[in-house]
Amino acid sequence: TTDFGTNDHFVGAVKGVILDIVPEAAIVDISHAVQAFDVLDGALTISQTYSYFPTGTVHMIVVDPGVGTARRPIIASSDGYHFVAPDNGVLSMIYAKEERIHVRHVTAEHYFHQPVSNTFHGRDIFAPVAAYLAKMVDSHKFGDEIEDYVRFAAPKPKTAGENRIRAVVLKVDRFGNLISNVTPADVPALFAG
Amino acid sequence: TTDFGTNDHFVGAVKGVILDIVPEAAIVDISHAVQAFDVLDGALTISQTYSYFPTGTVHMIVVDPGVGTARRPIIASSDGYHFVAPDNGVLSMIYAKEERIHVRHVTAEHYFHQPVSNTFHGRDIFAPVAAYLAKMVDSHKFGDEIEDYVRFAAPKPKTAGENRIRAVVLKVDRFGNLISNVTPADVPALFAG
Amino acid sequence: TTDFGTNDHFVGAVKGVILDIVPEAAIVDISHAVQAFDVLDGALTISQTYSYFPTGTVHMIVVDPGVGTARRPIIASSDGYHFVAPDNGVLSMIYAKEERIHVRHVTAEHYFHQPVSNTFHGRDIFAPVAAYLAKMVDSHKFGDEIEDYVRFAAPKPKTAGENRIRAVVLKVDRFGNLISNVTPADVPALFAG
Repeated sequence: TTDFGTNDHFVGAVKGVILDIVPEAAIVDISHAVQAFDVLDGALTISQTYSYFPTGTVHMIVVDPGVGTARRPIIASSDGYHFVAPDNGVLSMIYAKEERIHVRHVTAEHYFHQPVSNTFHGRDIFAPVAAYLAKMVDSHKFGDEIEDYVRFAAPKPKTAGENRIRAVVLKVDRFGNLISNVTPADVPALFAG
Repeated sequence: TTDFGTNDHFVGAVKGVILDIVPEAAIVDISHAVQAFDVLDGALTISQTYSYFPTGTVHMIVVDPGVGTARRPIIASSDGYHFVAPDNGVLSMIYAKEERIHVRHVTAEHYFHQPVSNTFHGRDIFAPVAAYLAKMVDSHKFGDEIEDYVRFAAPKPKTAGENRIRAVVLKVDRFGNLISNVTPADVPALFAG
Repeated sequence: TTDFGTNDHFVGAVKGVILDIVPEAAIVDISHAVQAFDVLDGALTISQTYSYFPTGTVHMIVVDPGVGTARRPIIASSDGYHFVAPDNGVLSMIYAKEERIHVRHVTAEHYFHQPVSNTFHGRDIFAPVAAYLAKMVDSHKFGDEIEDYVRFAAPKPKTAGENRIRAVVLKVDRFGNLISNVTPADVPALFAG
């Protein structure tokens, strides 16, 4: 899941790096059309999709406006999945959905593709880390656990007078559907009766 | 083959469901750029492509303006392929090309991904049915054979005066080629001499 | 790597032909968004990506404005990779990067998908040749080695007065970055001191 688009060579380079490490990997594109640099859009895309994949899947999410800065690469591990991503909040909705999750700061540079560029950590850091996880390297070998990982709170719908709620459209899909932040669970609390 | 586009999470979710059932599946995207809700465009896309795939391939075609209504999910089986689709005519050109074909109304809900949503049968019905077919579950286990499946007649070219024919442009491709409904077989009949 | 786009059935048909010959092939899309008929853009795309793939990878590059003319189909083989492409210069940057390369004119028509159309050699010639190479058929079986293959010289940056160079923008990527033809190796020679 990235904001790389499919018009450039980025996705191909990432897949080459993965297959060089794990030739038998089954790589699935969830979407490369996350809005460029839009961490919320990336968070939404992965949160709507990850749970349909088999247990043991390694999810790689690269929406990374801070590439080349000090923001940390992380691995978040739940009971069923690993998520490899920059620590910029793109996993916030995963943290909210998965009860038990452990987050590690990836510091083991010998797993990176050398030389590491300043602009393409998808290829040089996230792809090889995801590949070695898929190859069953233990997550604790990549770095220490952290607690202060970045997360943002998704906007919540509010009541706005009798039988009215104020909500946010998160996305407009291919068919023109508006995806709001109102969930079925919100409805009883928002409407009296 | 779908009209899902690749900007949303739809295709990713479908592939997750398939891989959860058949981890070793080789999933190939024919196109997700069928015009939204355009059953004729979907029929054309699959009819131009399916026969290049290996015998035994399961084709999944989801162009489904009637999702959530009573239209039936079907499996059409020819000597070489299975086609999983909504019964809305999207397989009409397959029916015309394949001499022997058996169509079944899929009613065996225990093969569906539960709960079945009202809006995303690609993920909840067509994907798991295609996956179990790929896993070699017999097609007769999914439901009874039907004869009254929906098909439409593709438009035919007509003579329109001496050395003229009236035809229809079905599609404009990436390179600007106009794809008409005139086939080489039509030419001798349309032109005297 | 092609200029086929992903809105038509072209890429699907190519993959069907490959999988019919090598069912276990791992097919990776580098990009199908090379500008239509733009051999330089194709040359750039493959040259930025090929070396990240595992040794032994067969690269298929189809940007082919001369399809249906006498331009030759070729296989270029370096120490690590095979490249299957039309002989129109699309491999020029590969020739420049790979020290040892052997180029063959593909003439062994029994490896083609019959009948060979006039307009879709991607499906009928390049896909099956790539598939048989992936199946470990020796490259010398496809045709004789040639020396007069087509190559163009990529534009080089020039000095243009003190502390100025004149260069060419080759591409604008998804994120708005301008990809020029200036490389780090050019800088010392272009700037005195």
